[in-house]
Amino acid sequence: MKLTLVKSLYRETEKFANKSVKISGWVRTVRDSKSFGFIEINDGTFFKNIQIVFDDSLENFKDITKVAISSSLSVEGTVVLTPGSKQPFEIKAIKIVLEGKSSSDYPLQKKRHSLEYLRTIAHLRPRSNTFSAVFRVRSIAAFAVHKFFQEKGFVYANTPLITGSDCEGAGEMFRLTTLDLENVPKDENGKVDYSKDFFGKETNLTVSGQLSAETFALAFRNVYTFGPTFRAENSNTARHAAEFWMIEPEMAFAELKDYMDIAEDLVKYIIKYVLENAPEEMEFFNSFIDKGLFDRLDNVANSDFGRISYTEAVDILKKSGHEFQYPVEWGIDLQTEHERYLTEKVFKKPIFVTDYPKDIKAFYMRANEDGKTVAAADLLVPGVGEIVGGSQREERLAILEKRIDEMGLKKEDYWWYLELRKYGETKHSGFGLGFERILMYITGMTNIRDVIPFPRTTGSAEF
Amino acid sequence: MKLTLVKSLYRETEKFANKSVKISGWVRTVRDSKSFGFIEINDGTFFKNIQIVFDDSLENFKDITKVAISSSLSVEGTVVLTPGSKQPFEIKAIKIVLEGKSSSDYPLQKKRHSLEYLRTIAHLRPRSNTFSAVFRVRSIAAFAVHKFFQEKGFVYANTPLITGSDCEGAGEMFRLTTLDLENVPKDENGKVDYSKDFFGKETNLTVSGQLSAETFALAFRNVYTFGPTFRAENSNTARHAAEFWMIEPEMAFAELKDYMDIAEDLVKYIIKYVLENAPEEMEFFNSFIDKGLFDRLDNVANSDFGRISYTEAVDILKKSGHEFQYPVEWGIDLQTEHERYLTEKVFKKPIFVTDYPKDIKAFYMRANEDGKTVAAADLLVPGVGEIVGGSQREERLAILEKRIDEMGLKKEDYWWYLELRKYGETKHSGFGLGFERILMYITGMTNIRDVIPFPRTTGSAEF
Repeated sequence: MKLTLVKSLYRETEKFANKSVKISGWVRTVRDSKSFGFIEINDGTFFKNIQIVFDDSLENFKDITKVAISSSLSVEGTVVLTPGSKQPFEIKAIKIVLEGKSSSDYPLQKKRHSLEYLRTIAHLRPRSNTFSAVFRVRSIAAFAVHKFFQEKGFVYANTPLITGSDCEGAGEMFRLTTLDLENVPKDENGKVDYSKDFFGKETNLTVSGQLSAETFALAFRNVYTFGPTFRAENSNTARHAAEFWMIEPEMAFAELKDYMDIAEDLVKYIIKYVLENAPEEMEFFNSFIDKGLFDRLDNVANSDFGRISYTEAVDILKKSGHEFQYPVEWGIDLQTEHERYLTEKVFKKPIFVTDYPKDIKAFYMRANEDGKTVAAADLLVPGVGEIVGGSQREERLAILEKRIDEMGLKKEDYWWYLELRKYGETKHSGFGLGFERILMYITGMTNIRDVIPFPRTTGSAEF
Repeated sequence: MKLTLVKSLYRETEKFANKSVKISGWVRTVRDSKSFGFIEINDGTFFKNIQIVFDDSLENFKDITKVAISSSLSVEGTVVLTPGSKQPFEIKAIKIVLEGKSSSDYPLQKKRHSLEYLRTIAHLRPRSNTFSAVFRVRSIAAFAVHKFFQEKGFVYANTPLITGSDCEGAGEMFRLTTLDLENVPKDENGKVDYSKDFFGKETNLTVSGQLSAETFALAFRNVYTFGPTFRAENSNTARHAAEFWMIEPEMAFAELKDYMDIAEDLVKYIIKYVLENAPEEMEFFNSFIDKGLFDRLDNVANSDFGRISYTEAVDILKKSGHEFQYPVEWGIDLQTEHERYLTEKVFKKPIFVTDYPKDIKAFYMRANEDGKTVAAADLLVPGVGEIVGGSQREERLAILEKRIDEMGLKKEDYWWYLELRKYGETKHSGFGLGFERILMYITGMTNIRDVIPFPRTTGSAEF
């Protein structure tokens, strides 16, 4: 008999009513009295369990009442609709086979566990309700990202993670090597001899695919990256991981406004797609993780994002009368407290803040006419703060070279990046969206360690 | 006036006939005579260029005749159908604006360049016909992979690239560190003091997401990974890169046969999806890269893949009378020459070879009843050889432990992998498909360096 997936039973219940089916899955709970029993099974294809009713007409009745949680079973039986009860149907078993046994010390018994404890069993936590929901949503949100861009004709650019340049400038990097660290080879000056390393020179793990993605945007017009990114920053917070996933679109012939339009569409699209395609999981988050979740997501999905300049934002903050931990002055980098005040108290919806002072932004951002600011914009959302950062890129060769000089960087490190302009000074814009940031926003999970299957953070690379 | 994308002009030509449009793009060629000229522009959204006709009624006629290749232009004009000529339509310009200038020494002039030369300008090669086709196909094929699995309800598992275990056993690894290599800290025994490293211990870049993916399969049933993978192998061949992308599905309640069914469907799906969604690019490959391409792909997409056991395969090879460089005996690992002989000369279509001797396969593959072989299968395709490798995984705790002992591995290194079985001995299977391998197969490109945007190979990590 062919296996039926539990997802099909839930999505097309009527079709299966009173029919015989065979399912397989893992035991979540067992209850029994003398002559009958109930087993809840989860088969991995659906958030909800399915209830199996069985009785002592089964020859292995006694054995089945004793199966350990997380054993795998196959069950043949009849689908019986149960209107009015907690689950819309159950399966009356005529045959149950123990496919694979588990052990009575299975750590995920029915009682609730702390998220901290579950991190110590990251190999088993996807079997819990919370992490089953988190990681299915992660998968669905990832597909939403691809679908959004592919339907718009964007080319997916797989930029390299191993980088030979340490001039990306966005943070501290992990060194990559095949040298024997017990006995590092040195050159005649007593320095590390990288010519003996795998690539014949120093290499690191990338902190951003942006510079590479620009090479593709200037060929394909609209492109995006979506993959792992690394920061060797010693920040042990709930929002930082050493390995995380980034989405970095780049668009030729696009100005700052165009980037903001696309970023706004993307954020709304992901939220709507997840709400539509993971309704049970999202219901769970709204009920058990963050009771205001649906309201918050509706607000984002259905409002027009605000747009104000950095200068206006500073003005609003200074006039607010609110006492901030970090005082506000034109020229400072906005802190999370400022960002949250703007988006939560003032605008009560997501806003883009545009045109930041050039001195607090990266060398590749396009200089504005005023000589003081650059065409950059960050998207701030209620409850989190910054979720997207982006800019129009400086496409004018002479101005970019001057800026590289001013910042004390070396032009020869950027030879190919500069050649992109030498051979076509095409305006273009792009942005970065931290995938885990938006997952935390969508699920209500408050620690980045709980939206990454096996998180890597300062001092921790378990599993 | 709103910009129109060249892809729309080609896909819905009739709709635009005799209409005014504005497009932007990069100059590929310019020809002119005294009073009129032709410019071919590519706007990045479509493989083909669009021809612009202009004349000296434009006030900047002289300047436009002199623009350097790869300059960016915007053009307003009328779409004129040109039935019978090489391109189905052209644009009669009424206004041309030079958006961004290029330089006369632009390296991608119209003449043909060698693939080797183009690798030295990897930042510009996506602007050439060949690499525009390769990387658009790469993007479309990547989406096909996601679409295939998501439509079947598979969960996308983002397994970690940084690994604290060096027991994946599939190849040499890159060490990851933030220690100062000029001055490596040592412990009291004179060994490297990894407690001072970022993660407080030795870490490497993963060679496979399989073991982590199994944790997800035993929760979600059907899962897949799709992301970068690393090998620090010193093999300077046309088929090996240090950084490449892998697709690694894992399926619970699935046997070897089920893996073969899914892998066959996947390969056919990707081929068909690319043929449908990149017809111009595929036409180009078939005409200029590999004249037998369409025949070969049709054969794969429309034949039922063969399935024979390793033992049968060895038998066929021994009886073939063919003289191989490596002699064939039961127990040897099949070489590419053997694989290609089987799939090209004997079967003339893709075949799975199953049930390999256990001694040439990994510890996690499921032992067959015969005590000599394991439930593994490789997919061989004409023209390439092995393209997919997979197996049923050993789910029986006691047998897996014994196998780990036999192979001289340490059980404590695999504690969580063993616990997956302790808490549910569920049968499951999985496989790995090298993304670049199938891209080479689909495009006819013969060097892996030419299907990766910025390839990383022994001694080379440029850009």
